Amino acid sequence: MAPSDPSRPEARSVKGFRDLFAADLLLKHRMIATVRQVYERYGFVPLETPALEFVDVLGKFLPESHTPEGGVFALRNPDLDAKADPRSPDTWLALRYDLTAPLARVAAQYADLPRPFRRYQVGPVWRVEKPGPGRFREFVQFDFDSVGVPDVAADAEVCMVMCDVLEALGFARGEYVVKVSNRKVMQGLLEVVGFGGADINDPDSKAAEVLRSIDKLDRIGLTGVRLLLGKGRLDPSGDFTTGAGLDDARIETVAAFLAAQVADRGAACDRMAELIGASPRGAEGVAELRRIDALLSAAGYGADRVVFDPAIVRGLAYYTGPVFEGQITKRIVEDGEERQFGTVFGGGRYDTLVERFTGQKVPATGASVGVDRLLEAMKLLAGARRDSTSEALVTVLDPSCLDRYFAMARELRDAGIACEVFLGEGGIRKQLKYADRTGIPVAVIAGGDEFSQGTVQLKDLALGRALSANVATNEEWKRDRPAQRVVPRGELVAAVREMVGA
Amino acid sequence: MAPSDPSRPEARSVKGFRDLFAADLLLKHRMIATVRQVYERYGFVPLETPALEFVDVLGKFLPESHTPEGGVFALRNPDLDAKADPRSPDTWLALRYDLTAPLARVAAQYADLPRPFRRYQVGPVWRVEKPGPGRFREFVQFDFDSVGVPDVAADAEVCMVMCDVLEALGFARGEYVVKVSNRKVMQGLLEVVGFGGADINDPDSKAAEVLRSIDKLDRIGLTGVRLLLGKGRLDPSGDFTTGAGLDDARIETVAAFLAAQVADRGAACDRMAELIGASPRGAEGVAELRRIDALLSAAGYGADRVVFDPAIVRGLAYYTGPVFEGQITKRIVEDGEERQFGTVFGGGRYDTLVERFTGQKVPATGASVGVDRLLEAMKLLAGARRDSTSEALVTVLDPSCLDRYFAMARELRDAGIACEVFLGEGGIRKQLKYADRTGIPVAVIAGGDEFSQGTVQLKDLALGRALSANVATNEEWKRDRPAQRVVPRGELVAAVREMVGA
Repeated sequence: MAPSDPSRPEARSVKGFRDLFAADLLLKHRMIATVRQVYERYGFVPLETPALEFVDVLGKFLPESHTPEGGVFALRNPDLDAKADPRSPDTWLALRYDLTAPLARVAAQYADLPRPFRRYQVGPVWRVEKPGPGRFREFVQFDFDSVGVPDVAADAEVCMVMCDVLEALGFARGEYVVKVSNRKVMQGLLEVVGFGGADINDPDSKAAEVLRSIDKLDRIGLTGVRLLLGKGRLDPSGDFTTGAGLDDARIETVAAFLAAQVADRGAACDRMAELIGASPRGAEGVAELRRIDALLSAAGYGADRVVFDPAIVRGLAYYTGPVFEGQITKRIVEDGEERQFGTVFGGGRYDTLVERFTGQKVPATGASVGVDRLLEAMKLLAGARRDSTSEALVTVLDPSCLDRYFAMARELRDAGIACEVFLGEGGIRKQLKYADRTGIPVAVIAGGDEFSQGTVQLKDLALGRALSANVATNEEWKRDRPAQRVVPRGELVAAVREMVGA
Repeated sequence: MAPSDPSRPEARSVKGFRDLFAADLLLKHRMIATVRQVYERYGFVPLETPALEFVDVLGKFLPESHTPEGGVFALRNPDLDAKADPRSPDTWLALRYDLTAPLARVAAQYADLPRPFRRYQVGPVWRVEKPGPGRFREFVQFDFDSVGVPDVAADAEVCMVMCDVLEALGFARGEYVVKVSNRKVMQGLLEVVGFGGADINDPDSKAAEVLRSIDKLDRIGLTGVRLLLGKGRLDPSGDFTTGAGLDDARIETVAAFLAAQVADRGAACDRMAELIGASPRGAEGVAELRRIDALLSAAGYGADRVVFDPAIVRGLAYYTGPVFEGQITKRIVEDGEERQFGTVFGGGRYDTLVERFTGQKVPATGASVGVDRLLEAMKLLAGARRDSTSEALVTVLDPSCLDRYFAMARELRDAGIACEVFLGEGGIRKQLKYADRTGIPVAVIAGGDEFSQGTVQLKDLALGRALSANVATNEEWKRDRPAQRVVPRGELVAAVREMVGA
């Protein structure tokens, strides 16, 4: 490769963006097909919206929403000239940062949508965040939502769908958990500790500060949260975070609330009612949770799958009722270390998102799979994967006979066996190396001798790999399944099929 | 809906962008699955690249490449501050305008890719173009390419894949055609008419002007092309386009060349060789076409499927050898008018696209499905489609019994029958209207009476629609398949299955 000739562009990706290759994508396709099947079984139908929206349509719901671009990739509307008012909502476009804001736009824009509108959507979203390990600026979400559903029965259904999806993907009971809380319960807590008038969705409010402290429970523990709620906390890094300034009694109330996650959903509701039932808003939230519990229990979704956890906050500011997180709890070990995948599903009820546009209340709820994070978990569970879809490589010893090689490939394909003819540069050694590199299990080899004898050679590369790796100590198995064999040309398809077990 | 409250954002899409709904998307999913299956059967594997790339990585291959943004949606790199040099290649990002430029980047960036690298990629691309009917700024391409394949056997394979894809999608022989030409043959023609030294890929060259004239053959006919090649042409609109200024003899050569498309591929090659064989470049191009012909013929791809058409130009400037177009020729009538779908597949060989980055020749070829245009054709062929995936709607007469309705839905789903419980607002009339609107064929109805009798009512909405539209004049059919029936609760699944024919 010519090293950095300044007249040539450098082949490079943008920071925080990445390419995905076959071994991952073949798994991802299966995963998406499985999720889609569950969504469709519940009657959700597909929707696709553009990557680009007007900035004001997306709204400012990201944590970075106080900056001008609000954490989104923004660009000028190409239909307006350079003199267009930069403060006009028509001047700026942005790449969507989630799939919920575009859904709200669609729900407001089309008068003739079915109601309820139950849709799923899968696609990339983009956020200007600091990239890190496993943290990208482009990532795929796979959402399902019901728009126009006032009853929290729809929220109970969301929990069921989440469980069904995770089980369809191969996670057994006990290997995942769906955690549920309710923004109204959280608001009840805030009322009880003296922030009744505060706007829970205003990031600069004291109430939001308390929520952010609670949201850190996983990382800093109850002791850390207590400090953040009170005078403040010294990070291990040496930085001091000023606390919310609650007095001890209030801190105890919050701590007791956070501990209200008990194995029994009904008992959790009782405990929450005890602590925050004095707030009408909180009592309403607990009543909603009780209805969700009843429907889940009747449908057989017990506390081994869905628990109530008052510490669940969820970041996005638009949630108004029940909120959900689906977590993988299965122990997954990679290179001797236990990997934590945490939340792969998140969602909640957002009754005001369509109202932003129309002024009319349109209750809605749903959840979203973080496809990339879930894929990481699936990869570790899937075991060996290969970079190829081909079952056979038809090698080319004599390029003047390509018509014969193409004919072999065609016969295999017609029999449903994916295969390819080697059309690159290099001799048989390089061709076999290619098959090895991509994990193609069988090589078909034929030259002058085979053509004149009416035969083909078949090389079992999977076996060859096993032999060369010295794992094939079973001589009988080796004798029955030789790494290389010669078959009559007419038996090509049958022999390959036998070798790949197709 | 509150009419345009200035404090509310307006629910609107960006010009040239659109939303896609279930009826189209369910068909699109099937289409994409079918295309993917053919690609995979040939051993192509998936790749995904980011939506955003550095502008210099994409290169300037669009017709609008003389403007600063070059026809792309560009934005500033958010990792650089406002003082970054606007002329630096790191300062600007852009949404990809095709999937080939990112593939070339990938092929140059990763040293350990398998060679050949055979990949497919499906995804949206974005271009700042004037939107029009059926012309969008965001559209989906579905590409397959082989990188590292010097032999035009790979180009013959591209033609085979294109045919196989169109047949897998339901187009029979004679309902589509793949047209092939060769940039080298085109260059031979230009040499013969006196533009031998011209850069065919420089949009401002005389050679490019001749090509653009040829490219208009479909629209303005041979007479029009002759005028554009000579003194110029008066458009029907009254505008005069200055011609390329060729003399009569040269115009005749070009006209004869364009007429060289004959039913027989070998004869077309003979005719081209006659006209432009004096150019070594042209002769090389004809020889390549002869090899492609031989391989296609041996594999049974006759001139009823793949023809050689010297008038095929293809727009993108990076092609260097064979170029391909797949066209739907099936007569499709919509509202009494014949619809032309034209080119749904396009591609060609591009041996210098990776070299842009590395300085090393990496021969590559492939083609791309225009998914949106093909979908338009498929829609007209598909007949009636519905907006739902559900086979049954479980209506809700008594919200306090939602556990029972959920249980019915679960039984149906467990039996593989997609269904949904109505969770919106409104009574039975509104619920049945919802099923009608979305095309759900069966409604399950149960209230106090049914619960106490252990029955459910099933309403055949498809039949109901047929009856109300007065198409069901066959009384017997009506008697055998009544629009409404009562079945024991325990027979719910069997009865619904029978009604939907699942």
